[in-house]
Amino acid sequence: PRKEMENTRNYCRKSKDVSVQELRGMLAEFARVRGWEQYHSPRNLFLALVGKVGELSEIFQWKGEVARGLPNWTCDDKGHLEEELSDVLLYLIRLADVCGLDLGQAALSKIVKNAQKYPVASPPTTPAYH
Amino acid sequence: PRKEMENTRNYCRKSKDVSVQELRGMLAEFARVRGWEQYHSPRNLFLALVGKVGELSEIFQWKGEVARGLPNWTCDDKGHLEEELSDVLLYLIRLADVCGLDLGQAALSKIVKNAQKYPVASPPTTPAYH
Amino acid sequence: PRKEMENTRNYCRKSKDVSVQELRGMLAEFARVRGWEQYHSPRNLFLALVGKVGELSEIFQWKGEVARGLPNWTCDDKGHLEEELSDVLLYLIRLADVCGLDLGQAALSKIVKNAQKYPVASPPTTPAYH
Amino acid sequence: PRKEMENTRNYCRKSKDVSVQELRGMLAEFARVRGWEQYHSPRNLFLALVGKVGELSEIFQWKGEVARGLPNWTCDDKGHLEEELSDVLLYLIRLADVCGLDLGQAALSKIVKNAQKYPVASPPTTPAYH
Repeated sequence: PRKEMENTRNYCRKSKDVSVQELRGMLAEFARVRGWEQYHSPRNLFLALVGKVGELSEIFQWKGEVARGLPNWTCDDKGHLEEELSDVLLYLIRLADVCGLDLGQAALSKIVKNAQKYPVASPPTTPAYH
Repeated sequence: PRKEMENTRNYCRKSKDVSVQELRGMLAEFARVRGWEQYHSPRNLFLALVGKVGELSEIFQWKGEVARGLPNWTCDDKGHLEEELSDVLLYLIRLADVCGLDLGQAALSKIVKNAQKYPVASPPTTPAYH
Repeated sequence: PRKEMENTRNYCRKSKDVSVQELRGMLAEFARVRGWEQYHSPRNLFLALVGKVGELSEIFQWKGEVARGLPNWTCDDKGHLEEELSDVLLYLIRLADVCGLDLGQAALSKIVKNAQKYPVASPPTTPAYH
Repeated sequence: PRKEMENTRNYCRKSKDVSVQELRGMLAEFARVRGWEQYHSPRNLFLALVGKVGELSEIFQWKGEVARGLPNWTCDDKGHLEEELSDVLLYLIRLADVCGLDLGQAALSKIVKNAQKYPVASPPTTPAYH
């Protein structure tokens, strides 16, 4: 555990450019050493993700429209938002992993597909990369 | 657009290890060249993310418990799941970006925090990295 | 089935004031006569509900702030919204039912609890009936 | 406020069969007397609903498949579930109301529509009342 934390801390210092694959590996190890793999079924993880999406929603819920860059938000509020965004990301990466899927690669493929579906020359009136 | 797609395709061939930062950059460019930045307010993007979480949910909804690795799922079903997982990821990264937050770095910090909160020596009975 | 529809239609004509209990009964019968009870486990129904919440989200996603009463929305858009709101309601009522809970009664109790938690004399600055 | 609570309590005693319309009225009054109408825009309420769906999800998240009727759940756990289900219901009813829609009537229409879409004679293999 101490070693685990040191590794992650060193990583933090070395680079901000963490890959989806690296996060995937950290989370797999995190669950393994804690004996949590037994709980990490796809539907359990998906429900945990929905729980975190709910916490993200609470941050935005009574604010009316929120401006890009979050002007006027306190550091605490931004920190809280970072944590909830991270929680969603971590459960998403873990969910993809236990499903045996390569999320980073899938995301790249989706961007290519979206680029073909929405060519630059003829933009739709609203964004819609489904 | 053609160049954009070629760049992404080359990326796909070169490496599967895409970083959160690289995806962030691709999505920012994707929105910029299509004139979609005007629609990408934090709450709009969050609602779009919730929409994609809903599509993810539909994939799991009538299946009862799903086993790790998705045995017995068809390639089509797995491909569909990859697309919906990717959509959630892409909206999440884009949401963090328009909020001015560094999601990759935040995720690393959250893993460190979780490791401190749930030391390996005394595992809780259920996973709970909140 | 014909009889089922006629009953529901008659109900529609007679009164707009449907109770949670009546909807519960209709949905239980709906599932029973179609042999769907086997699929209606709590988690399956909850995931179906999340799917419908996602569709609701899509309706609001690119609109920026939406005014009360939905001025300028077309009849079609309002009809679509009514359907998605109904879907969430129906799954919610069905979920409570298969859990063996009385949702109407629980909702009344929650309103009483909220009224005690948020007395009128000292309003909080933001609504928060948790 | 005292009168408000007494009214609701009397209601509780008189009947379990509360209607969607009655709940709508109570919630409108609840918001009005607290000066909360200003916060109850459609998107604010929808995000609050998503927050409550997240809390509902947390209840189910690490449990694996949950049996109908919730055998083995404690009274506390059932009470917690009733509260979260109620919160989703109350926000849903309030959301429909500020949108100017009649949710009870819409739900009845949706049941009729579903009955036509999924006739009893030829049941689909999975439930799908979309």
